[in-house]
Amino acid sequence: MKRTVCLLAALGALASAVAATPAFGQADVGAVPIYGIKLPQGYRDWKMISVADVGAPVNDLRVKLGNDIALRAYLDDRRPFPDGTIIARLAYQQVTSEENNKAFRAAAEQRGLPAEQIEKLLAASFVAGPPTNVQFMVKDSKKYASTGGWGFAEFTNGKPDGEAVHKTCFGCHAPAKDHDFVFTRYAP
Amino acid sequence: MKRTVCLLAALGALASAVAATPAFGQADVGAVPIYGIKLPQGYRDWKMISVADVGAPVNDLRVKLGNDIALRAYLDDRRPFPDGTIIARLAYQQVTSEENNKAFRAAAEQRGLPAEQIEKLLAASFVAGPPTNVQFMVKDSKKYASTGGWGFAEFTNGKPDGEAVHKTCFGCHAPAKDHDFVFTRYAP
Repeated sequence: MKRTVCLLAALGALASAVAATPAFGQADVGAVPIYGIKLPQGYRDWKMISVADVGAPVNDLRVKLGNDIALRAYLDDRRPFPDGTIIARLAYQQVTSEENNKAFRAAAEQRGLPAEQIEKLLAASFVAGPPTNVQFMVKDSKKYASTGGWGFAEFTNGKPDGEAVHKTCFGCHAPAKDHDFVFTRYAP
Repeated sequence: MKRTVCLLAALGALASAVAATPAFGQADVGAVPIYGIKLPQGYRDWKMISVADVGAPVNDLRVKLGNDIALRAYLDDRRPFPDGTIIARLAYQQVTSEENNKAFRAAAEQRGLPAEQIEKLLAASFVAGPPTNVQFMVKDSKKYASTGGWGFAEFTNGKPDGEAVHKTCFGCHAPAKDHDFVFTRYAP
């Protein structure tokens, strides 16, 4: 029994290690409600579409990544996006980097920026801290016909979030109807 | 002669089209001073390391991408980075997205956020606008032995920037000596 427990613990540790590799998202953590979407495999290695940040009280830094179908559609300026498109939104808490700020301070002083402006610059400079959650838009024009052809999914700490949040996704994306419900543009 | 000119024009258009593809950086735009680095091919398609933003008066959004050697080193927690590592820093002007803000406003109102806080949230929420410049760190422990093994490069509008800016790179990275002169950590 003890051996079984140890083995399970070891397997658990292995699974955690696998989950922490770039292709994190390979473990089967179940599907989100309503849309039935599982965490897409290897999304952390997808190509970058664009970046954004959101102010207080959200205070996060965001990056949008896309699978190959998404990137091809962006670069070909193809709308609506074809079936198979997946767009990922990764969000991180904004945190201050003392180390970065040391370098910024030195550079700003070198350039003769007034002390007050330097403090403002440093107070509003952030790097990505702990991840908050990841969201996905998955295009399947038949399966998700009633929500513009898109399925939506949110995962926190690798686990699917609940029904309440998934009920809100499509409504928020409605203002972007002219761009196939996608807000993000490709950053060159 | 006319045919030759037309052909050259067509080739020029073709070259521009190629340069505008995801692998933008393929055109030979020359090397930066001091370090002799050319714009790395295909860097826009590299994998994402992390994101950041910098406050006023800089006001930009930044993403760090890395070539495969860089990503491997990050994920293996390998320092110093091996020769061949290239880290790219892409920066974009922070711009307001009216469309995003419409959706944020609706979501914030739905969640009962006070009007004053909503205005603050929208005023501090940005997406990537026009690119400012791209910077690279290229690891070659022999070639760049006098600057911690790193060569530095900055390009604006695809063109190498001048000597003055390249003289400042290594000094600013000195505070990160304990991390092989690299500030950026991998965002999971």
